[in-house]
Amino acid sequence: MARRLKGALVVGQSGGPTAVINASLAGVVDAALQQAEFDAVLGLWHGIEGALKEELVDLSQEDSQTLQGLVGTPAAALGSCRHKLTSAEYERILEVFKAHGVRYFVYIGGNDSMDTAYQVAKLAAETGYEMQVMGVPKTIDNDLALTDHTPGYGSAARYVAISTMDAGRDLAAMKTFEDVCILETMGRHAGWLAAASVLGKRDEVDPPHLVYLPERTFSEEQFLEDVRRVHRALGHVMVVVSEGIRDADGQLIGAKTGPVQTDAFGHVTVAMGLGVAPYLQNLVTRELGLKARFNRPGTLQRSCSIAASQVDLEEAYMVGRAAVEHLLAGESGFMVTLERLGSPQYRCTTGLARLEQVANAEKLMPAEFINEEGNMPSRAFVEYALPLVGGPLPEHVRLKGALVAKRAPAWPER
Amino acid sequence: MARRLKGALVVGQSGGPTAVINASLAGVVDAALQQAEFDAVLGLWHGIEGALKEELVDLSQEDSQTLQGLVGTPAAALGSCRHKLTSAEYERILEVFKAHGVRYFVYIGGNDSMDTAYQVAKLAAETGYEMQVMGVPKTIDNDLALTDHTPGYGSAARYVAISTMDAGRDLAAMKTFEDVCILETMGRHAGWLAAASVLGKRDEVDPPHLVYLPERTFSEEQFLEDVRRVHRALGHVMVVVSEGIRDADGQLIGAKTGPVQTDAFGHVTVAMGLGVAPYLQNLVTRELGLKARFNRPGTLQRSCSIAASQVDLEEAYMVGRAAVEHLLAGESGFMVTLERLGSPQYRCTTGLARLEQVANAEKLMPAEFINEEGNMPSRAFVEYALPLVGGPLPEHVRLKGALVAKRAPAWPER
Repeated sequence: MARRLKGALVVGQSGGPTAVINASLAGVVDAALQQAEFDAVLGLWHGIEGALKEELVDLSQEDSQTLQGLVGTPAAALGSCRHKLTSAEYERILEVFKAHGVRYFVYIGGNDSMDTAYQVAKLAAETGYEMQVMGVPKTIDNDLALTDHTPGYGSAARYVAISTMDAGRDLAAMKTFEDVCILETMGRHAGWLAAASVLGKRDEVDPPHLVYLPERTFSEEQFLEDVRRVHRALGHVMVVVSEGIRDADGQLIGAKTGPVQTDAFGHVTVAMGLGVAPYLQNLVTRELGLKARFNRPGTLQRSCSIAASQVDLEEAYMVGRAAVEHLLAGESGFMVTLERLGSPQYRCTTGLARLEQVANAEKLMPAEFINEEGNMPSRAFVEYALPLVGGPLPEHVRLKGALVAKRAPAWPER
Repeated sequence: MARRLKGALVVGQSGGPTAVINASLAGVVDAALQQAEFDAVLGLWHGIEGALKEELVDLSQEDSQTLQGLVGTPAAALGSCRHKLTSAEYERILEVFKAHGVRYFVYIGGNDSMDTAYQVAKLAAETGYEMQVMGVPKTIDNDLALTDHTPGYGSAARYVAISTMDAGRDLAAMKTFEDVCILETMGRHAGWLAAASVLGKRDEVDPPHLVYLPERTFSEEQFLEDVRRVHRALGHVMVVVSEGIRDADGQLIGAKTGPVQTDAFGHVTVAMGLGVAPYLQNLVTRELGLKARFNRPGTLQRSCSIAASQVDLEEAYMVGRAAVEHLLAGESGFMVTLERLGSPQYRCTTGLARLEQVANAEKLMPAEFINEEGNMPSRAFVEYALPLVGGPLPEHVRLKGALVAKRAPAWPER
């Protein structure tokens, strides 16, 4: 049995929220409050900023109903942050941790947050302050190294899959009036989320018809050719595009131009980068003369409570609990990982990866998860991702649509 | 008992799809297939365009599983259209209807579609062709006259309410990094949908904080002042804005960013432009120096299958069935309406309104449903709209967040 440090445990949430990051918080808090070892169970108010400002929440004062309700409440109940720390700030954090007898630090976040946790652990070790640190993975982007996938991804993937099914049906119904719908997903460098749009697709007619990922260079010519081809075949085109796609020069498509505005003097002023979907909508309209619109759910894809994946919720809770259990086992300097167990039934258990190996690394989609043309995820990707979205996706029916024989005089097509 | 015409029944779907318009179709088809009176039960492929092209679907050939699955499948299973008919086209429609012995016409749609149904009925009467016509209401905009509300609205309202709750939580969690989130809803002239964003709001902190509706003139100065005030009080501002807001000169705010398009009816379809949310995001950033982002779910708000309201699904089915029952009772020239029955329990029954009274009329939000400042729906609106979203909205918890006493040296705020 490992020797146990006597002290407080502090937990924080960091980076972009997810639909299930509060389930991880619940896992940490439930496990920690069950242990008499911890002098206190504290929360960082808005992540590491709460440490700097010494805004620490006493989590033992929360009632059990609130703690239970964390599972299912999206975003970050403790508040989150995006804050790049200076070395003076790392020292400040240790100062605050020492003042409150914090000997256990759990940080829930993405790769930047794992770096933060790693740096705190390193500084503590260098300055001779005994402390154990554990990271808990979180990101809808699914881009963390050394874990099969990340909590948060399954729910965002479920959201994108269902949204694509629904918006695609809407477009198909309107195809005599509208031609192209472009759904923009998050994902600055990795295409995991945009790729999830295919998870409800059963056949060629089902949406999406084209998916563009940051892992492949985006060519406007090829895109227009793709859209033209699908439109000719189906009469409508559902496109899903990651916000992070770039051209051959490495320039973000979404940063190219916003809509032009004119100022009081009639001078054209270009608005700030409004994202890739509006740009592509204009491109399609201008170059192909097709009627296009865009959907940009924005933060809804990472916060949608009703699209949360049951598998994701359970795993998010599990990695939170596991972090505390590993601390109690004397371990430090790790991020809890998810390890997929063998088929046929999908199952996951937890593992550990060194914080410094996760920190600042980025897991992109491997080549075998993308088709040769670079405009659609592969079957292998679907097999990987489908279990993560939890329960079955909606089953939308399609009418057989048997046309009756014509009896009226011919009518000239417009 | 009314004398019954012997002939076929034809049903069509028209205008922007909804999450429940297929439930209305199911109601019509279920009721019609039970009746031996109808020689055939036909569907118009893409609305009235299916009549012009003589593309008529034999709905008796659909299997029962598909018909059952219509309830829960979003968009328009028969296909929809937006088509402004010429007088030659009205004659063509009658020609096709006569060729197939159509004596019953059910058209599911909004006010333009009710006008189409009315014109078909009128031409039939003028030319001595015996036919009965019935309209079934449909629109997420809830802007049809003479009905308590429209099928489609409850589900879109549920979507907007939940999306606002979720995105608002996301923003609150990120408030040390982001300041303003702008959610753009549909609603070209009526604010019913944007107003629905308040249905999950329990207190001042809950989102949304500001709601702008087309019923009130939009002032950029007042908007910026509102945002500044809320930001000072809460540190973050969740704004919901209808795509149709206009300035004092009647100019669409959303048209300031990019080209607007017009549909076949000459209506400006703001959704095809780049919209109001990107414009306001730029405005907030430029004028207040606040970090802003926008969510624009677009067609997701009218097609989201997992946000469908149970009440809405049931009522949509009910009005479809009622249309056939009224036809069998010999009635013609009406739209089926929803009539709210007394409290305390919400209940609705169906009624009838003359097609020509619904056609081209538009029901805006009454003054008592909007607060004096014009930036928030009223309590009376909530009482009206809350029953329509069906089951309870998600219950998001909020931590008490009891801060522990400070013990570390003070840290200078940046």
